Amino acid sequence: MKAYQELSRAELLSLKEQLDREYEEARGKGLKLDMSRGKPSAAQLDMSRDFLDALNSASEMKSENGLDVRNYGAMDGIPEAKKLMGDIMGVPAENVIVCGNASLTIMYDTVSRSMTHGVLGSTPWCRLDKVKFLCPCPGYDRHFAITQHFGIEMINVPMTPQGPDMDMVERLVSEDDSIKGIWCVPKYSNPQGYTYSEETVKRFAHLKPVAEDFRIFWDNAYAVHHLYEDRQDELAEILNLCAEAGNPDMVYEFCSTSKITYAGAGISAVASSRANLDEMKKVLTLQTIGFDKVNQLRHVRYFKNIDGIQAHMKKHAGWMRPKFEAVLAVLEKELSGLGIGQWTRPNGGYFISFDAMKGCAKAIVAKCRDAGVVLTGAGATFPYGVDPEDSNIRIAPSFPTPEEMAMAADLFVLCVKLVSVEKLLEEK
Amino acid sequence: MKAYQELSRAELLSLKEQLDREYEEARGKGLKLDMSRGKPSAAQLDMSRDFLDALNSASEMKSENGLDVRNYGAMDGIPEAKKLMGDIMGVPAENVIVCGNASLTIMYDTVSRSMTHGVLGSTPWCRLDKVKFLCPCPGYDRHFAITQHFGIEMINVPMTPQGPDMDMVERLVSEDDSIKGIWCVPKYSNPQGYTYSEETVKRFAHLKPVAEDFRIFWDNAYAVHHLYEDRQDELAEILNLCAEAGNPDMVYEFCSTSKITYAGAGISAVASSRANLDEMKKVLTLQTIGFDKVNQLRHVRYFKNIDGIQAHMKKHAGWMRPKFEAVLAVLEKELSGLGIGQWTRPNGGYFISFDAMKGCAKAIVAKCRDAGVVLTGAGATFPYGVDPEDSNIRIAPSFPTPEEMAMAADLFVLCVKLVSVEKLLEEK
Repeated sequence: MKAYQELSRAELLSLKEQLDREYEEARGKGLKLDMSRGKPSAAQLDMSRDFLDALNSASEMKSENGLDVRNYGAMDGIPEAKKLMGDIMGVPAENVIVCGNASLTIMYDTVSRSMTHGVLGSTPWCRLDKVKFLCPCPGYDRHFAITQHFGIEMINVPMTPQGPDMDMVERLVSEDDSIKGIWCVPKYSNPQGYTYSEETVKRFAHLKPVAEDFRIFWDNAYAVHHLYEDRQDELAEILNLCAEAGNPDMVYEFCSTSKITYAGAGISAVASSRANLDEMKKVLTLQTIGFDKVNQLRHVRYFKNIDGIQAHMKKHAGWMRPKFEAVLAVLEKELSGLGIGQWTRPNGGYFISFDAMKGCAKAIVAKCRDAGVVLTGAGATFPYGVDPEDSNIRIAPSFPTPEEMAMAADLFVLCVKLVSVEKLLEEK
Repeated sequence: MKAYQELSRAELLSLKEQLDREYEEARGKGLKLDMSRGKPSAAQLDMSRDFLDALNSASEMKSENGLDVRNYGAMDGIPEAKKLMGDIMGVPAENVIVCGNASLTIMYDTVSRSMTHGVLGSTPWCRLDKVKFLCPCPGYDRHFAITQHFGIEMINVPMTPQGPDMDMVERLVSEDDSIKGIWCVPKYSNPQGYTYSEETVKRFAHLKPVAEDFRIFWDNAYAVHHLYEDRQDELAEILNLCAEAGNPDMVYEFCSTSKITYAGAGISAVASSRANLDEMKKVLTLQTIGFDKVNQLRHVRYFKNIDGIQAHMKKHAGWMRPKFEAVLAVLEKELSGLGIGQWTRPNGGYFISFDAMKGCAKAIVAKCRDAGVVLTGAGATFPYGVDPEDSNIRIAPSFPTPEEMAMAADLFVLCVKLVSVEKLLEEK
């Protein structure tokens, strides 16, 4: 098939007629599918059912250091949970604080605390005229929502398959002391599924920001979330690289078990330098009487160690892979060579990123919604919800069943074609 | 026995000699007891062991509205948990958001959000020259620590057995628009165990603060924490009273199950008006992907309803009462009529408040510590850790066993006597 751009107006009109018919037909099916968020499916949750048996009334409720996990105390987590979460991130337990059920909360708190109290003695950000964050994009909408909430100006940084445009990052942080942070999903990035190359991570570690309170927010959300056994991305460990580069305090790393055990009832963790963790702990003693250590122990008893997690993640991959492949097969079959879309083929994570022709994303998402398939809102992957090209669409295949996924993908490519044809007709 | 104040110098000297001997003896026993925090005892935690069986791999994991509690969603909690927590506070489920394992976190977040974003559209507190909170005291040190952390000026308000000095509260809030809040533990208050009278609660509801963003922080931490079946305090329900008084948005109420199930692994809740809850929820969607709904469901399955909680609290009382009575018996027997101390006799809660002679609290706490009994630091019950009279000591009988409690109480009264004699000798 020819690329749509090469079709004549007559050919486009005839194509549109056919696609319109197909779309009306599809709409008649009464689909009702949600691909808007990276939610685990019911099957994945059921797979972890026995997680709930990891602790029961007969269990020893002491952590390995003798602490009763049911009582107050151990603000920074029980030692075995620090070890487990550290192993997920590839950092020593001593660099870890284990927190509640959402790593997003730690990120929010970290920004909030920097606003009101500064970073290791710096001026509180709320007292500065201007605070800016670099936002590699497309990226994670909830990251951008946090910085937007605090009135932090967000600067788009283009993503590449090797990570953010590091020339731009290096230049900006070395010029502008109002740039205080950067949001990163360094492995199986949201939504593209890219993993930052070793060179990119090293360049991060060697950044020379003019702002001493500049921090890298390293959201390692998909550290162990591979799709394949034989094709797994490796991410260089940034804490150690930062320390070696003389920037020990420059990074906060986050992770959670939300997509390992239960999306709503996992545990989260932050890894950072001693100085950064000490600052966090000082405030944590005001914020909480300690996180849920029973759930921390439940995780450790269930997985035993990182090998247990890796084995469990293989089972998750067994559920996720067919859905990714179903979507990719449809995209490949239906859109290859048409010149109306490009997409990523990730080795892990929760998303496929689709780039439509400029100016088409909103219309595609709207058309899908009208026919019963909810996608993440177009623009959501960019700061302020504004995709300057109106091109990027995040596909989240995790929640539907593979059958639903195939139906949804069929509708999606249909909408891509239809909107693209309409766009091309407008331009002709 | 005569009051110490009536003893001659010679009598005091001879008494001191005897008490010194007793103290040296006590110190030789090598006690190692911690009465510093309101921590549940191991026996109490064991009593709730079967709580862990309330959910297992065979359990239905859907909430009553069909939501899979293991997945994302339901930011404000599952309906049955809202109902349960609402019933603890005596408010409708629709006025409740169920949160994570610590009500302290909600309080911290509420103050933090007011600092950075204001309250229902008011100027963010961090942009004001001065923000003040009223602090009924003695009170809860962690409350005061939060406001201190944000640079909020704290004003001491004396406590009475009916609650805070309401003449002072009414006058101050009607005069000073920099007063933005008041910390309250209205039932079985920390540390005195007082319950605000109905009149006090009504006066709260009818406050006419000049600051429209003035809020009552109503920490109903001990709502169901009675010690006796036949002597239970009743607290008037403030949300409804505020609404009736035309002040629907003036109060945030907090509670948790930290001292019902597990101190480290309970659930917490906030109750407030629709407008306040909407404001909270708007920010919660940035802070979290939803709280741990599995633990919410675990609580509901375990207790069924408020009757289940009440029955469970009777069992807690069975553990707590003997310790309170052991302390009170020793205080009564050893200190009655000596004029060197007064103490409260609460019907519930976690503390007994002891007022030593002026200028003696720090010395008593230090002497206890030297002999192996750790009490809450003197001054901790006041803003900035400064008890202007150096008189108040918080006794937390929950953690030790009754036998340990009796030993600790014996040492405590000995230290009270010794320090009082030394004080009187200084003054003679």
